[in-house]
Amino acid sequence: MARKAGVVGGGVIGAGWAARLLLMGWDVTIHDPDPEAPRKVAEVLANARRALPGLHDVALPPEGRLSFAPDPEGAALGAEWVVEAVPERLPLKHAVYARIQRAAPGVTIGSSTSGFRPSQLQEGAADPGRILVAHPFNPVYLLPLVEVVGSPANPPDVLAQAEAVIRAIGMYPLRLRAEIDAHIADRFLEAVWREALWLVRDGIATTEEIDNAIRYGFGLRWAQMGLFETYRIAGGEAGMRHFLAQFGPALKWPWTRLMDVPDLTEDLVETIAAQSDAQSGARSIRELERIRDRNLVGILRSLRGTGGPQEPGWGAGALLRAHDAAHAPPPPDLSGPVLTLARAVPLDWTDYNGHMNEARYLEAFGAATDRMMALLGCDAAYIAAGGSFFTAETHIRHLAELHAGDRIEVRTLVLGAEGKRLHLWHELRGPDGALAATGEHLLLHVDLATRRTSAPAPALAARMAEVAAQHARLPRPEGAGRSVAQGR
Amino acid sequence: MARKAGVVGGGVIGAGWAARLLLMGWDVTIHDPDPEAPRKVAEVLANARRALPGLHDVALPPEGRLSFAPDPEGAALGAEWVVEAVPERLPLKHAVYARIQRAAPGVTIGSSTSGFRPSQLQEGAADPGRILVAHPFNPVYLLPLVEVVGSPANPPDVLAQAEAVIRAIGMYPLRLRAEIDAHIADRFLEAVWREALWLVRDGIATTEEIDNAIRYGFGLRWAQMGLFETYRIAGGEAGMRHFLAQFGPALKWPWTRLMDVPDLTEDLVETIAAQSDAQSGARSIRELERIRDRNLVGILRSLRGTGGPQEPGWGAGALLRAHDAAHAPPPPDLSGPVLTLARAVPLDWTDYNGHMNEARYLEAFGAATDRMMALLGCDAAYIAAGGSFFTAETHIRHLAELHAGDRIEVRTLVLGAEGKRLHLWHELRGPDGALAATGEHLLLHVDLATRRTSAPAPALAARMAEVAAQHARLPRPEGAGRSVAQGR
Repeated sequence: MARKAGVVGGGVIGAGWAARLLLMGWDVTIHDPDPEAPRKVAEVLANARRALPGLHDVALPPEGRLSFAPDPEGAALGAEWVVEAVPERLPLKHAVYARIQRAAPGVTIGSSTSGFRPSQLQEGAADPGRILVAHPFNPVYLLPLVEVVGSPANPPDVLAQAEAVIRAIGMYPLRLRAEIDAHIADRFLEAVWREALWLVRDGIATTEEIDNAIRYGFGLRWAQMGLFETYRIAGGEAGMRHFLAQFGPALKWPWTRLMDVPDLTEDLVETIAAQSDAQSGARSIRELERIRDRNLVGILRSLRGTGGPQEPGWGAGALLRAHDAAHAPPPPDLSGPVLTLARAVPLDWTDYNGHMNEARYLEAFGAATDRMMALLGCDAAYIAAGGSFFTAETHIRHLAELHAGDRIEVRTLVLGAEGKRLHLWHELRGPDGALAATGEHLLLHVDLATRRTSAPAPALAARMAEVAAQHARLPRPEGAGRSVAQGR
Repeated sequence: MARKAGVVGGGVIGAGWAARLLLMGWDVTIHDPDPEAPRKVAEVLANARRALPGLHDVALPPEGRLSFAPDPEGAALGAEWVVEAVPERLPLKHAVYARIQRAAPGVTIGSSTSGFRPSQLQEGAADPGRILVAHPFNPVYLLPLVEVVGSPANPPDVLAQAEAVIRAIGMYPLRLRAEIDAHIADRFLEAVWREALWLVRDGIATTEEIDNAIRYGFGLRWAQMGLFETYRIAGGEAGMRHFLAQFGPALKWPWTRLMDVPDLTEDLVETIAAQSDAQSGARSIRELERIRDRNLVGILRSLRGTGGPQEPGWGAGALLRAHDAAHAPPPPDLSGPVLTLARAVPLDWTDYNGHMNEARYLEAFGAATDRMMALLGCDAAYIAAGGSFFTAETHIRHLAELHAGDRIEVRTLVLGAEGKRLHLWHELRGPDGALAATGEHLLLHVDLATRRTSAPAPALAARMAEVAAQHARLPRPEGAGRSVAQGR
């Protein structure tokens, strides 16, 4: 039987919790007085259905059942976990807890509050030990962080239960060692927010410039390592103590408008250095650098987006696309094998065998196919007008290993072009010029509105025929028409 | 002829500049008094060669020539752009500028300083207008941000030249509207650093817990959108003014130890809201949400890493891997078609045609192959001991479109297992159970030390033969042995 959760408050945060719980197989009952809540929750759930399940490499359990209750009591009844995500007004939260604890004594209530301490939430409650902070981050269905904060009133088993629930739905419970206003993450957000307001107010930068200062620089580092591990690397082989010695004096400089600064005592230096050793000391700085670079390449390439040449990408990925567009190779000679790809093997194309993964050969051939299509006239404008090619059939031979940073080139022949059929042959060569793979592909022209095969537009058809006729005069490549495991 | 740059200071930052310039085709001359500098620069360059070229989807120009000079004058001579990356001591920087400007009058000097204002750098210089701040972020060969800061002494053409150089090497010049201590990004870093020191000092969290609070939550958001655009989405359809009204009061609350707060006047609210409209107003909140989710899925999946099941991943990607490992499916029945993959289509597997990209079919089949290998005995331990399979040949038929979030399953037959050859057949079905693709693959067993084919270990060979014999009793699948474009 599915586990059951209640959610009180169906805004962005409550709906995000509900979507994650549902997709992880829980039954969820929501209460929200807003008559629009079911529609808003449905929108968040639709987004989550597209995004969350595919994050995982295993199938998630069948989606749980969603229902709505007319009051907080109805949401809590029969639940093992209740999410409180109502507006940040303490009397309102207290009233909700009182109703839940009368109707469903013993249920654990996790508050999504970003600012209140658990002991504030627990004031006047019938069962203060069952109320704690479980603060998530938007979008709740994608970001794993949940700050779990208890007060001395919370028995350890209640906090342990909360952590277990959070882990069960694929999130990470970060347990605070003591309660504090705004927990941890929102204290950083607030500090940055205050500094950002000064910069806008003083005319140093606009909101967009500030966002760019973050997402083209340290934001990319923080997505994978955070603050201290990044600085550990910056300190080089000398490590964290060296970093603190080098940058400690800046604490006294006017590098922010926020000037209430802790003393960097010998004790504090020792604490930080020891904690950093415990966190990252198992790996050398060189190893951490390589991990960081692999992560950054993966993040930056993912921000390029998965669209064709016409997609703009996002953030730092858009910068890469713009740079590449400005350095696009000139149109190649179409009479012989056509140069359709020249690039280096990305760091994230290699796999546990230490070489370029088999799927990336097809990614490279797919890019070469896109280029050949564009050269024949099926370019971004043609596709936007509703025609394209879909690959129907592919044959790949892997002939040599390739490694990160290797320069590769693909040259392409049109083996045939009849009606809606386009038959391509790709040869991929590595840095030594040797053949590393061949790809043979049958593409079919489609109408993107009906998703069915259709005849290419006349200009495209003419160009396909012309190039196919030219290439027919060249020797037919060895291996064309081969089937898997066929003898030589 | 290659463009030429000088780099004075060959530490992490100077070497990072040099690596990026070289890989973008510039000749670079470095001066650093450290006799170890050539070795250190070579290490950074080796990392950069693996990571930077593959970021781009076009080939970079041939790598430039690297040389070392015994003095700053030698680094600057003949250069159109000089990077200053010496330690953060103003008299040292002044001395370097004096020597460069005597030897190479008219050259533009970009200082990597993270703290000094350009007018401080220019004090006492022969040609102050040719000295400016061009502050990059580590690793310089991957992160695009460069803060460009001038003073009133800098002619506009010098700043324009600096921006052009920065763009030419694939970076993003963020021009500050006025000079300020520590520019923009380091003011944020310093504010967060100060708050983090308080949290460690007060025993609220360890360095690792703080890093996790960043990289499992807002760090992932900031990698792609930054601060203001993220908050614009949080404000919902009501937008930035609503967000400011809702969260403005928190400025007066003790949410950070850093309490010097600007007044949120009507003027400031209007400025921020107008700037945010200019930045993000062309897209609805719903559209921004979908873009954000696509970015987050891409980032999170890239942090899973590209290794096999034995790789731990990193940051939030490691959390996903751990969750999946704890929810791994039970070993399937090997006698019939074997269930080797069950998952949802990730958001970043779809392409400009709106469906799952052809290369991702091979990624799915590759995962199914990995699973089948493991079930036969070629698991993580076997691979760690030096044996594996490499795919030699692949044939794919694409029979139906798949979309983000679709649940897919792959079932696998062993068509043959003789000696070092393993012949697999995959059938991929979509959410409606219909066949969406077939994959036929020939794998060869290899010795990972010699990278040559070799006989499988006896236990693996026996299991391969046993399963192949069982599967030989089943009907041979339609389409096996097919070549591309073969008639029906």
